Amino acid sequence: MKAMLYNGPGDISLGTKAKPSIQSPTDAIVRLTKTTICGTDLHIGKGDVPTCSPGTVLGHEGVGIIDSVGSSVSQFKEGDKVLISCISSCGTCAYCKKQMPSHCETGGWILGNTIDGTQAEYVRTPHADSSLYLIPGGANESSYLMLSDIFPTGFECGVLRGKVAPGGSVVIVGGGPVGLAVSITAQLYSPSQIILVDQDENRLKVARKFGASHTINPNKQNVKEEVYRLTNNVGCDSVIEAVGVPATFLTCQDLVAPGGVIANVGVHGTKVDLHLESLWDKNISITMALVDAVTTPMLLKLVESGKVDPSALITHKFKFEQMDEAYRVFGQAAKNEALKVQIEMD
Amino acid sequence: MKAMLYNGPGDISLGTKAKPSIQSPTDAIVRLTKTTICGTDLHIGKGDVPTCSPGTVLGHEGVGIIDSVGSSVSQFKEGDKVLISCISSCGTCAYCKKQMPSHCETGGWILGNTIDGTQAEYVRTPHADSSLYLIPGGANESSYLMLSDIFPTGFECGVLRGKVAPGGSVVIVGGGPVGLAVSITAQLYSPSQIILVDQDENRLKVARKFGASHTINPNKQNVKEEVYRLTNNVGCDSVIEAVGVPATFLTCQDLVAPGGVIANVGVHGTKVDLHLESLWDKNISITMALVDAVTTPMLLKLVESGKVDPSALITHKFKFEQMDEAYRVFGQAAKNEALKVQIEMD
Amino acid sequence: MKAMLYNGPGDISLGTKAKPSIQSPTDAIVRLTKTTICGTDLHIGKGDVPTCSPGTVLGHEGVGIIDSVGSSVSQFKEGDKVLISCISSCGTCAYCKKQMPSHCETGGWILGNTIDGTQAEYVRTPHADSSLYLIPGGANESSYLMLSDIFPTGFECGVLRGKVAPGGSVVIVGGGPVGLAVSITAQLYSPSQIILVDQDENRLKVARKFGASHTINPNKQNVKEEVYRLTNNVGCDSVIEAVGVPATFLTCQDLVAPGGVIANVGVHGTKVDLHLESLWDKNISITMALVDAVTTPMLLKLVESGKVDPSALITHKFKFEQMDEAYRVFGQAAKNEALKVQIEMD
Amino acid sequence: MKAMLYNGPGDISLGTKAKPSIQSPTDAIVRLTKTTICGTDLHIGKGDVPTCSPGTVLGHEGVGIIDSVGSSVSQFKEGDKVLISCISSCGTCAYCKKQMPSHCETGGWILGNTIDGTQAEYVRTPHADSSLYLIPGGANESSYLMLSDIFPTGFECGVLRGKVAPGGSVVIVGGGPVGLAVSITAQLYSPSQIILVDQDENRLKVARKFGASHTINPNKQNVKEEVYRLTNNVGCDSVIEAVGVPATFLTCQDLVAPGGVIANVGVHGTKVDLHLESLWDKNISITMALVDAVTTPMLLKLVESGKVDPSALITHKFKFEQMDEAYRVFGQAAKNEALKVQIEMD
Repeated sequence: MKAMLYNGPGDISLGTKAKPSIQSPTDAIVRLTKTTICGTDLHIGKGDVPTCSPGTVLGHEGVGIIDSVGSSVSQFKEGDKVLISCISSCGTCAYCKKQMPSHCETGGWILGNTIDGTQAEYVRTPHADSSLYLIPGGANESSYLMLSDIFPTGFECGVLRGKVAPGGSVVIVGGGPVGLAVSITAQLYSPSQIILVDQDENRLKVARKFGASHTINPNKQNVKEEVYRLTNNVGCDSVIEAVGVPATFLTCQDLVAPGGVIANVGVHGTKVDLHLESLWDKNISITMALVDAVTTPMLLKLVESGKVDPSALITHKFKFEQMDEAYRVFGQAAKNEALKVQIEMD
Repeated sequence: MKAMLYNGPGDISLGTKAKPSIQSPTDAIVRLTKTTICGTDLHIGKGDVPTCSPGTVLGHEGVGIIDSVGSSVSQFKEGDKVLISCISSCGTCAYCKKQMPSHCETGGWILGNTIDGTQAEYVRTPHADSSLYLIPGGANESSYLMLSDIFPTGFECGVLRGKVAPGGSVVIVGGGPVGLAVSITAQLYSPSQIILVDQDENRLKVARKFGASHTINPNKQNVKEEVYRLTNNVGCDSVIEAVGVPATFLTCQDLVAPGGVIANVGVHGTKVDLHLESLWDKNISITMALVDAVTTPMLLKLVESGKVDPSALITHKFKFEQMDEAYRVFGQAAKNEALKVQIEMD
Repeated sequence: MKAMLYNGPGDISLGTKAKPSIQSPTDAIVRLTKTTICGTDLHIGKGDVPTCSPGTVLGHEGVGIIDSVGSSVSQFKEGDKVLISCISSCGTCAYCKKQMPSHCETGGWILGNTIDGTQAEYVRTPHADSSLYLIPGGANESSYLMLSDIFPTGFECGVLRGKVAPGGSVVIVGGGPVGLAVSITAQLYSPSQIILVDQDENRLKVARKFGASHTINPNKQNVKEEVYRLTNNVGCDSVIEAVGVPATFLTCQDLVAPGGVIANVGVHGTKVDLHLESLWDKNISITMALVDAVTTPMLLKLVESGKVDPSALITHKFKFEQMDEAYRVFGQAAKNEALKVQIEMD
Repeated sequence: MKAMLYNGPGDISLGTKAKPSIQSPTDAIVRLTKTTICGTDLHIGKGDVPTCSPGTVLGHEGVGIIDSVGSSVSQFKEGDKVLISCISSCGTCAYCKKQMPSHCETGGWILGNTIDGTQAEYVRTPHADSSLYLIPGGANESSYLMLSDIFPTGFECGVLRGKVAPGGSVVIVGGGPVGLAVSITAQLYSPSQIILVDQDENRLKVARKFGASHTINPNKQNVKEEVYRLTNNVGCDSVIEAVGVPATFLTCQDLVAPGGVIANVGVHGTKVDLHLESLWDKNISITMALVDAVTTPMLLKLVESGKVDPSALITHKFKFEQMDEAYRVFGQAAKNEALKVQIEMD
């Protein structure tokens, strides 16, 4: 079959690989209909993710049709249309029982990382009963595609851990796809303010369309002064880091109100400074997490009821043979005014 | 009256100061019967706390007898025996309404800091109705003295924020008075393990007496290896920092289990390194707080019912005229095998 | 001054009473600008509330201007425009410290009940610092008037205790003003369904305007069948009782999903049947509460940011001299298509 | 094999049944080493549980040795010593994902109810990976036997739902095995008072041994007066119903403090009166639940660390051939001063 392969640091390409087959009674094989690219795929391509070996199929997001199932899979059958979660969950280990499948002993984020992923014609999904979700007939597949990773990530790592609450104040540092997913899902809890910080004017414009009540461009305004001006001089209850570099994590420490939370969503590659000497008595907390995708069933209900339209994040659409072009566009997302790109299989 | 005064950096002494009087209808004047010394008092003495001006009476802990009350004080009257909380709370500002009197707009930690404190014959306590607690007749005053600060601090900043829970694993880095108060109050939630780390063998011995199930001396053992050995190789659910220096905060980052909490109790003077590059996907949180003393009523019930005996932390007793000696002993606590020192007024 | 008086069972009238004066240092006197009528006022009028003595001024809702304050009131001064909470809170008793001022030892629901209320030219408000809220200049007073009672009641007793959550299913039994306040504030948590049940077609129409996704008229449809049809045959996560009679409480027991909550908001005059024989293993909870009004600061922020417009519940406006007419219209609310009535002082 | 059979209303007996075999890849067959009898088994014997058909093997508690496992069972292998949970959990359905396996779509309480149970030489356990727990070598099997049902039931339905908390007051109405399991596990949260109410003096004596701070015999004392006397006239924060009849549920309504919880643990056969007319404004909640057994891993840790010794509840020991005698003794538990009976297989 055709598949997008990680060949080694700096080298990814559309190639071929053997079609996967059932290896365990709990597996399913899914024929992909749509997939997408995540910032993490770019990291892998650069060689920054040592758990991913050369030869691995990229991708951990997708929707598709069940091709076959293992003997103990009871929730799905051939022909079912399904959403593939970026997190594989056995449902029975100590971490899964604690609602923490991000650390599942035989799952977690393995697709497109330690095993072959979803940027291919077919994918083997372990622990199918716990890791796939049925898509209702007639549904908009593009919306479900956004529930593989980015929406549960924004919601769980940003909104829930950030304790976004009715009447509260939220600042999101970073207006890329994940920051915007935070901005959209933060509204599920009706904060009184959602402030988004980014250097790119197009992203700020998009953020305002997606529900940010205020936007700040650090190249034009003093972020701290502006946030304090907007919040009666107390800072924000929920501060969401959605970039992943030391500078933005520092900014977050400046913006948090006494009693507030800094929720880190960004993927960091180096240590950061934590100013405990000024924060120790501010009664704040700092959270960080890989998504557990335990809110996927809830997000599915909101999509089905029309309360949330995740497909709005898709700015570009490609055919699978255009994968290289899709990576090129997404790789320079700000320049191309790209948020999420959708890749349609043939 | 006689009072322990902060005269300037490096200079504290027992001197005299005018007896305080009611300044606001919500004030009370309390005649002290017992007081104690906190690590923070030592910091002030060194000149490390810029909010404290020369001439201020030290101390934020004490029990005493109501001498007089302002016109709107309704809960207390002359002659009542009371516990003085280290946190003054107006009960009506936005922070107090959020159960966060640590940041009370006209209170918080002000005694022995921005206003005269409790190491004196008399103290003026603002917001008396919300900041004092009646001590039942016949009670052991020494136990109540420990509820001014150290017990609510250990319990709120360490145990509650550290999410100590039945069956969980706890490691406390630092076996001084606060670390031991954490060790004692952690048992209120019945964890299966309480590991205490300290370099001082006497403190480790005391910790075992006060409920630590295991102790580690970093001068003799590899802390990380030992904690992982004790916890089936997963680390601890609740990691409590009770020292306040970069090295111990680093140690805490090594010891936390996926899904766990690092609860900072120590007072820090410099920034620390936070290894987000290895922690971002461990689904942990880090908390830090000045005590709110909102659990004082609960701790009072536990003392009254005999479930907890905070007076066990008192190792040395002095008369008020021995204040200089009390500071000297407490200032070299480990060497003197001192935990809390009790000072009795005449 | 002019005041609406409870003279005894079945006898209320607009009469005169001495203007109130400061009795305690924590009191304020407020000159009313707007007030409204609550269902509870009707109960008092009928003689159903024994705590209310003949001669008492009715009313526990209102906005006005501070006329004078007691010597220890620090948050308000003459001329301030304020919202009067239906709950008076001392801020210092054990219940207030537990965030439960509904049971404040010297407060709670006392206005228009055990002491003179707000349907008068002036009212004395005890514990002013904790029980009044500043209204910003230029604000729409009518919106704030709805925050005295009905909005915090619907939100705290219905939405919060009912654990309304993103993606969840909600059914509200009763479409009077309180049921509609629940329907409006439930949306702060983005449930996927809000079903409202009432016998009055106008109220169902209004409910759909105010955010109900589905409505059911029990005179035309089988409520249980319809709710199960709408919820994949599982019932609702949040069931809100907003009537206060045995029949509707029974209906609620039929509609709750396993793991759900029945949140009682209605005021009940008789015991009800609880079918423990069929509910004991459904893992549900039942809650009941007098409002604490602790969410008033949060609701104020949502009104100020324009996220919620409580004034939409006002259907009729009267002058204070028309008080009798206002009671007549509100007393037959369904017939008059009345929700809340606003009374403007001269 | 030998098995204790429900033959029809009023008719149970030790008989024979074919040894079970694997029916699904997720099954295990367990050879029992110890089992016990639950009050529910008595209900089934009387014919009160219509879901249980004649011919079913009784029992939902037990420890044993894995005899064989289905092809997709990954956590257990032949020869492992295991604890059998009374709740079978698939780990993947909507209820299991919500931590509510009591309502698992293909599990829940099925052993000894809708499928053959544990009072036999062998039992087939569905969903083995999620429903069995490994017992460490050298452990006291009797303690683990108590973790099949009674300890998680007392803890989850009584202690957790009753919100037992440090310093709080608890009253347990009913001193049978479940009430005592509540009394023991309530201590994990260090309440200041545990009051136990029962008519049997032996049970009150046992309760005091197991941690009750006070006991009340309703035949000798006025329960309400005594509870109010012990609680400064406010009632109890946590009221646990552990009998299952209307009279005791009424008692609970009398004993709950404002803001408290009534946690129903008893199995009820008829409706009860709920006095909403006096409770509607007391800000309480009422909970009811079938055990989910999600705290079993935590309870295992506490047993392993020696913090809890559940085997203390076992008063009588029998061999499997004495099953009829064991039922006779347990059927008249109070008269025989019996709590839990242990049955040892040959």
